[in-house]
Amino acid sequence: MESGVTYAKGFKASGVACGLKKNGNPDLAIVVCDRLASAAGLFTRNAVKGHSLMLAQQNVRGGYAQAVIINAGNANACLGSRGDEDALKMAALMAQRFGLAPQHVLTGSTGVIGKPLPIDRVSAGISMAVLSKQGGADAARAIMTTDTVKKQAEASFTINGCEVRIGGMAKGAGMIHPDMATMISVLTTDAAIDAQALQAALKEAADASYNRISIDGETSVCDQLLILASGASGCPAIKAGTADYTLFLDALKSVCITLARMLAADGEGATKLLTVTVKNARTQKDAQLISNAIATSPLCKTAAFGNDANWGRLLTAAGYSGAAFDPAKTDIYIGTVQVCSSGGGLDFDEAAALNELKQPEVVYTVDLREGSFSYTMWTCDFSLDYVRINADYRT
Amino acid sequence: MESGVTYAKGFKASGVACGLKKNGNPDLAIVVCDRLASAAGLFTRNAVKGHSLMLAQQNVRGGYAQAVIINAGNANACLGSRGDEDALKMAALMAQRFGLAPQHVLTGSTGVIGKPLPIDRVSAGISMAVLSKQGGADAARAIMTTDTVKKQAEASFTINGCEVRIGGMAKGAGMIHPDMATMISVLTTDAAIDAQALQAALKEAADASYNRISIDGETSVCDQLLILASGASGCPAIKAGTADYTLFLDALKSVCITLARMLAADGEGATKLLTVTVKNARTQKDAQLISNAIATSPLCKTAAFGNDANWGRLLTAAGYSGAAFDPAKTDIYIGTVQVCSSGGGLDFDEAAALNELKQPEVVYTVDLREGSFSYTMWTCDFSLDYVRINADYRT
Repeated sequence: MESGVTYAKGFKASGVACGLKKNGNPDLAIVVCDRLASAAGLFTRNAVKGHSLMLAQQNVRGGYAQAVIINAGNANACLGSRGDEDALKMAALMAQRFGLAPQHVLTGSTGVIGKPLPIDRVSAGISMAVLSKQGGADAARAIMTTDTVKKQAEASFTINGCEVRIGGMAKGAGMIHPDMATMISVLTTDAAIDAQALQAALKEAADASYNRISIDGETSVCDQLLILASGASGCPAIKAGTADYTLFLDALKSVCITLARMLAADGEGATKLLTVTVKNARTQKDAQLISNAIATSPLCKTAAFGNDANWGRLLTAAGYSGAAFDPAKTDIYIGTVQVCSSGGGLDFDEAAALNELKQPEVVYTVDLREGSFSYTMWTCDFSLDYVRINADYRT
Repeated sequence: MESGVTYAKGFKASGVACGLKKNGNPDLAIVVCDRLASAAGLFTRNAVKGHSLMLAQQNVRGGYAQAVIINAGNANACLGSRGDEDALKMAALMAQRFGLAPQHVLTGSTGVIGKPLPIDRVSAGISMAVLSKQGGADAARAIMTTDTVKKQAEASFTINGCEVRIGGMAKGAGMIHPDMATMISVLTTDAAIDAQALQAALKEAADASYNRISIDGETSVCDQLLILASGASGCPAIKAGTADYTLFLDALKSVCITLARMLAADGEGATKLLTVTVKNARTQKDAQLISNAIATSPLCKTAAFGNDANWGRLLTAAGYSGAAFDPAKTDIYIGTVQVCSSGGGLDFDEAAALNELKQPEVVYTVDLREGSFSYTMWTCDFSLDYVRINADYRT
C-alpha cells in the first residue's frame, strides 16, 4: 500500500534494521524522490543542535532536495567534529548508493545523545535498503523511538480535476513541546510548488499542529520537520496567495494535525489524549498561555491519569500561566460536564465526570467569558509508565 | 523542646487535629505572640488566590500581627464569597479565643481546592488548642500535606552578647516552584526590627532559598511566607543597612535555606535531593535560566530517579532554557565525575557516576566557562511515587 511518505507520486522509501536499536527493530528510514524536489524545513530552536540536523538545515537552504535519511536509536548529537563528519558521511553514502548530489540529501538522527554513531552500520543499512512505493510504512516504523505505534497520514485535493497528494510520517513520544518543530516528521507531496511557498505553508501548518502539542515540556536537539515537493502530480503549479494554495495549505494542515494528535495520544506512557481548549479569552496570546500551562502541568496530567476531576488544578495552572483574565468569571468543563462556574466549584455529577475521564480522548474546556479568542492544544496524561520509560532510557 | 516557630522568645504554638484530614492527623496550626509583633509576608503570584491567603495579605499590610492560624487538608480557595467569609470567621474565632484584634491574625489554608471549609471543625480546633513553648513541633506537623517529615529550622546570633533567635516551619511536597513564596512557611524571631526592614530581609532571604527550589514547576494558590518579630529578645533594635542587620539577614537566610533544602528533599515521591549549580555564566540571569531548566526538566529528573548518568538531557535542557551560552564550551559534572567536556561526551567511569547518583544528595554542576556568574537551585528526582500521589489526590 502506498501510504505516508510514499503516498505522493515520485517518492519511494525503505526502512531497514542496521543494528542501532538494541532490540533489533528497524532503525534506518530512507526516502528518495525520482527527481530534484522543492524542499523546506523547520528545526529545533534548542541552542544545542544535533550534527545530522545541522547538515539538513544547511542543505535545505538551497530550496531543493532529493532524499531524506534518518536513523533512530542513536542521536548524532553532542559529539564535536566527529558528529559533523558522520553526518557528512551519511549524506555521501546516500549520494553514492542512489546517484544523488550529497547536498541534496537531508540527514536526521534521533536517540541517545552523546554516543558516537556507528557509521559502519549505517553504511551497511544504506547498502541493503531497497526502495519501493510500499516502503512508506517501513520508513515510518524505522524512525520510531519510544513510540508504540507508527504514525502516518495522507490527504489529497484536486486542481481542476487533477489530484494532488500529501503524505507524511512522524515520530514523537518524549521531549515534545511547542514553539518549534517538536519531533521528527517527513512530509512529501507531488504538488508543483516552489521552496518559498512551501516553507510558508509548512510554517503555517506546523503552527496549527506540531506547535500545539506538548508531552513533557521538553524540546530535543534533534527535532526537525521536512517537506519535499516532487511536482510529479503533473498538476498546475501552486502559487502563494491563490485559491489552490489555500487548498494545499488545508490539506497540509489536515495531515499535520492528524500526525500531531497521534503524537500526543502516543506520548511516553500516555493512556489517553487530552484536548485542552481555552475559549473566549481577551487575546489569542492569553488563550495560548492558559492552554499551554494546563497542557504542561504535571498535576493536571497526573489527575487525568488517575481519572480525578481535580478542576482546581486547571484553574491554578491558568492562574500561573501569565495570562490576563479574571478567575471569578471562569467556567470549566470536563467533556460535557461543567465542574466550575464563575471560578467556584459546582456540586457536579462525579460519575458523569469519571465517565468522561475514562474516554480515550478527554476534552478540557476553559471558558474565560471575557473575549472572543480561542486556542486548542493536545497533550496526554502523565502516567507511571512515563517515569518508568525515562528513568533508565540510556542504560 | 523549643523548636521551629517557638524557638524565639515571645511565641507559643499548638497543633491539633480537628478532622480536616481524612487520616485524623493534626491539621490546624496556631502560633501566638505574647505581644503585637512586626510582621511581613510574601504571597503567591498566581492570579488565583486562596481566600485565607488574601485575608493574610490584607492584614499584614499594616506591618503588625500577633497570631497565625493555618489549616491543612482543605484549602479555602475558589469558593466565592463563602471563602472570604470563612477566612474572616477563622480570624474572628482566633481573636475571641486568645484576646486579639482580628486584623492582627494572619490566616492560611492548604489542601484540596474548591471544597468548602468545615468552619465548625476549625472552630472546635481553635477551642481545643493549648498554646505552649513546646508546641512548635506540633504546629509544624499540623501544616503538613503530602510532606513525609515535619520541617523546622533555627538559628541565632548575638548583638553585643545579647542573643537573637530565629526559627521557623515550612510545608511543601508538591506545587513548588520559584519566583514567589513557593510553599507555606511561618518564621518567628525575637529581634526588634520594624516591618519595613523585616519585609526587605524576608524578600532577600526568600530569593536565596525558597525562590531557588522547584519540585514540579507548579505554583499553588495558597503559597505564603510569613514572619513575625516579637522584639522579646530585649536586644537593641536592628536597623536596615547596619552590621546587625547583616547578621540578622545571614541568620534568616540560614533558616530559610535549611527549610528550602528540606522541602526539595521531601518533594512528592522524592528519593533524593538534587543540587543544580551552573557556574561561570556570562550573566546571573543565564546561570539562573539554565539551573531552572534542569531543575524543572522531567527528563533530567526521571534520569536521576533511575540513577542514569544521562548528561545529554542536562545539556539539552540548558539548550532550550533561553540562556545565552556556547554549548561547545560546556563541561558537566555529576558529583565529582566529569561526564561532558566542551559539549562532547567523555568516556567516563560509569560505576563512579552511578555511585554519585545513589547518594541522598546528588550535585549536578554545569560549567559554562564563559563568565563569572553562578546560580544554584535545589530540586528532587521525579519518581513513580510522584505520579501515584498525584493521580488521585482529590478522590
